Amino acid sequence: MRVLVKDLKRHVGEEVELLGFLHWRRDLGKVQFLLLRDRSGVVQVVTGGQRLPLPESSLRVRGVVVANAKAPGGLEVQAREIEVLSPALEPTPVEIPKEEWRANPDTLLEYRYVTLRGEKARAPLKVQAALVRGFRRYLDRQDFTEIFTPKVVRAGAEGGSGLFGVDYFEKRAYLAQSPQLYKQIMVGVFERVYEVAPVWRMEEHHTSRHLNEYLSLDVEMGFIADEEDLMRLEEALLAEMLEEALNTAGNEIRLLGATWPSFPQDIPRLTHAEAKRILKEELGYPVGQDLSEEAERLLGEYAKERWGSDWLFVTRYPRSVRPFYTYPEEDGTTRSFDLLFRGLEITSGGQRIHRYEELLESLKAKGMDPEAFQGYLEVFKYGMPPHGGFAIGAERLTQKLLGLPNVRYARAFPRDRHRLTP
Amino acid sequence: MRVLVKDLKRHVGEEVELLGFLHWRRDLGKVQFLLLRDRSGVVQVVTGGQRLPLPESSLRVRGVVVANAKAPGGLEVQAREIEVLSPALEPTPVEIPKEEWRANPDTLLEYRYVTLRGEKARAPLKVQAALVRGFRRYLDRQDFTEIFTPKVVRAGAEGGSGLFGVDYFEKRAYLAQSPQLYKQIMVGVFERVYEVAPVWRMEEHHTSRHLNEYLSLDVEMGFIADEEDLMRLEEALLAEMLEEALNTAGNEIRLLGATWPSFPQDIPRLTHAEAKRILKEELGYPVGQDLSEEAERLLGEYAKERWGSDWLFVTRYPRSVRPFYTYPEEDGTTRSFDLLFRGLEITSGGQRIHRYEELLESLKAKGMDPEAFQGYLEVFKYGMPPHGGFAIGAERLTQKLLGLPNVRYARAFPRDRHRLTP
Repeated sequence: MRVLVKDLKRHVGEEVELLGFLHWRRDLGKVQFLLLRDRSGVVQVVTGGQRLPLPESSLRVRGVVVANAKAPGGLEVQAREIEVLSPALEPTPVEIPKEEWRANPDTLLEYRYVTLRGEKARAPLKVQAALVRGFRRYLDRQDFTEIFTPKVVRAGAEGGSGLFGVDYFEKRAYLAQSPQLYKQIMVGVFERVYEVAPVWRMEEHHTSRHLNEYLSLDVEMGFIADEEDLMRLEEALLAEMLEEALNTAGNEIRLLGATWPSFPQDIPRLTHAEAKRILKEELGYPVGQDLSEEAERLLGEYAKERWGSDWLFVTRYPRSVRPFYTYPEEDGTTRSFDLLFRGLEITSGGQRIHRYEELLESLKAKGMDPEAFQGYLEVFKYGMPPHGGFAIGAERLTQKLLGLPNVRYARAFPRDRHRLTP
Repeated sequence: MRVLVKDLKRHVGEEVELLGFLHWRRDLGKVQFLLLRDRSGVVQVVTGGQRLPLPESSLRVRGVVVANAKAPGGLEVQAREIEVLSPALEPTPVEIPKEEWRANPDTLLEYRYVTLRGEKARAPLKVQAALVRGFRRYLDRQDFTEIFTPKVVRAGAEGGSGLFGVDYFEKRAYLAQSPQLYKQIMVGVFERVYEVAPVWRMEEHHTSRHLNEYLSLDVEMGFIADEEDLMRLEEALLAEMLEEALNTAGNEIRLLGATWPSFPQDIPRLTHAEAKRILKEELGYPVGQDLSEEAERLLGEYAKERWGSDWLFVTRYPRSVRPFYTYPEEDGTTRSFDLLFRGLEITSGGQRIHRYEELLESLKAKGMDPEAFQGYLEVFKYGMPPHGGFAIGAERLTQKLLGLPNVRYARAFPRDRHRLTP
């Protein structure tokens, strides 16, 4: 019966079977040391007079668990039998135990099919899976329905720019930038919906925080009073996501030395106008209508200093910087918000326009062609209730939570301006 | 405080608030009857001397819950106040209460953004969400890790045919047909992985069981003995999926009049050779190496008659009809299986080749170019353990479980040979 590395402490003095990968080896002639890595962790194994295969070979080890204060984790396994299930044929391009995601990203990403095996490389993906699990579980409990909307679409949610083209039989189609329009339609069906799915942005940016394919955690909710309902929902949702990650991926979080954030409860809110005033008058950093990345970073510091909060909602953005479907106020602002986490935008959301004529007007005011949105607009002829939602970028949140230097390490096989493999 | 329709029975005699859509209306002059639909169901509302808006308008209703044996569900709400939150501007293209997915599919699908609101139209999506929830929950408990692999790829998993092309900046890319190669790589990282994500097949078929974009439930598992481990896993997994659907979408299953299947435990297994023999000798339907749809249908009937089982594993397919990465036996068969449910293939799976040289040989034997798979092949130089997996087509399973006449009704916004909208 196989035992996982993390459970060995309950088997001291017993003979166990381990399965895993040869993480590291050292041959002292009569004695060989090796580290065996399985999905749960790494343990030292000692054997004698045995020729060990190359690192990353997969092994079956039978041996006795003994306490050893000098061994990593305070335990080692004295092997009675080591079977090579599948030998590595070549040395790995990067030494997996030394592999650090602080090393040259290009090398790590080029060989990601094997560098991902490193404990620090795989940890962010484990944390992300836990965050997503918390996301779904909280929303399931709130009676949201998971939806699966099309990713090959006729037109974009916000016009034609930034879309990757697809040859769909004889037709021209695009990869969805967002499930925006579909999740709104689904509010008419299930009232409360969410989706966890990839989206694509054909952005030329090649920075440490941009991905061209990323995982979007989308929420949309009907019968709301205003955007405040959405912000309260997001606070409780994020709290459960963080809790689930801490409970089920605590080892990974510790391994990466991450500082877990303050609880996202009663997150401070600043209107866009207040934020601009603070930036100009208090932080000496005047900005235009759009908040630059630097402005967001400064606001993040401000929230930390003033309220001790890692989180900050910036609300009521002006119409000019929000999509056409954003619910407008008479003063030129909108019922919208961004959520900044440690100075990085991880969410954008808001109430949507739910009346047909107002959508038409808004499209025209933005200089967009209502014809291109005909299929989308139709549903607003049929009594769409007040509704709104938001989207969380899973990799950005993971990156920022874990303090990763690059968002690419929060995605198994990132796609960027220059990277289409592995 | 809003009450959902399904909870009204606990509020008889009380005044409640309802939110929802005007499902149907009838004006008798002094008295108006309407059906109000929310995400949980439909209830009759009675009011007097009020002009009702068009169907599908969204409403807030305040009224008293009273027992009424003649009303649907035995209850009605006597309205004190009806507020139109958002009026429908036009009659719906299809009458939602009469909408039946047995009607003309083209009409229903063309106006799907509103026909989906029908109780029978939305029910399969609710059931599917429950099936997927059961899928994830079972695998989470078995220590599988959810993965999110790229959908824009350089090459297909099974060669170049059947792929939709994508313009990825200057490069030619494709939509993933399957996460096959990536989920195998991830076995080296987490040993046990799953993914729930869309895949695409550029098939010309335009039938009631083909979709060009569908949801694939993928599983891959390392350190297996052989494909029997996978079939046992799938039995337990399907049992939990069916149980979750029955527990949380029972109303929807009943609404559709579905006959829930026998429990998928100890599913009978037939080797491909046995299946061929039975088809020829017992069923008078000789076939070649490939089992046709009709052959699968006949085998489904055979399993039902002989074992009383809705399920049948067909195993040990010959190499010629399986992908290059399938683990071969010396007798020309492979460690592979399909799962037929009521005579429809809903899963394909098997053990994979885990040694580099054997993969190379297999590619060559299939007349495929190893160069095109270089990135994939590399990982097999690094001690990949024995492993395998399978994929379940979510819409096909949903269709067959619910007896839907067309797989398109198991997807919110289906994409097919001719359909790219809505």
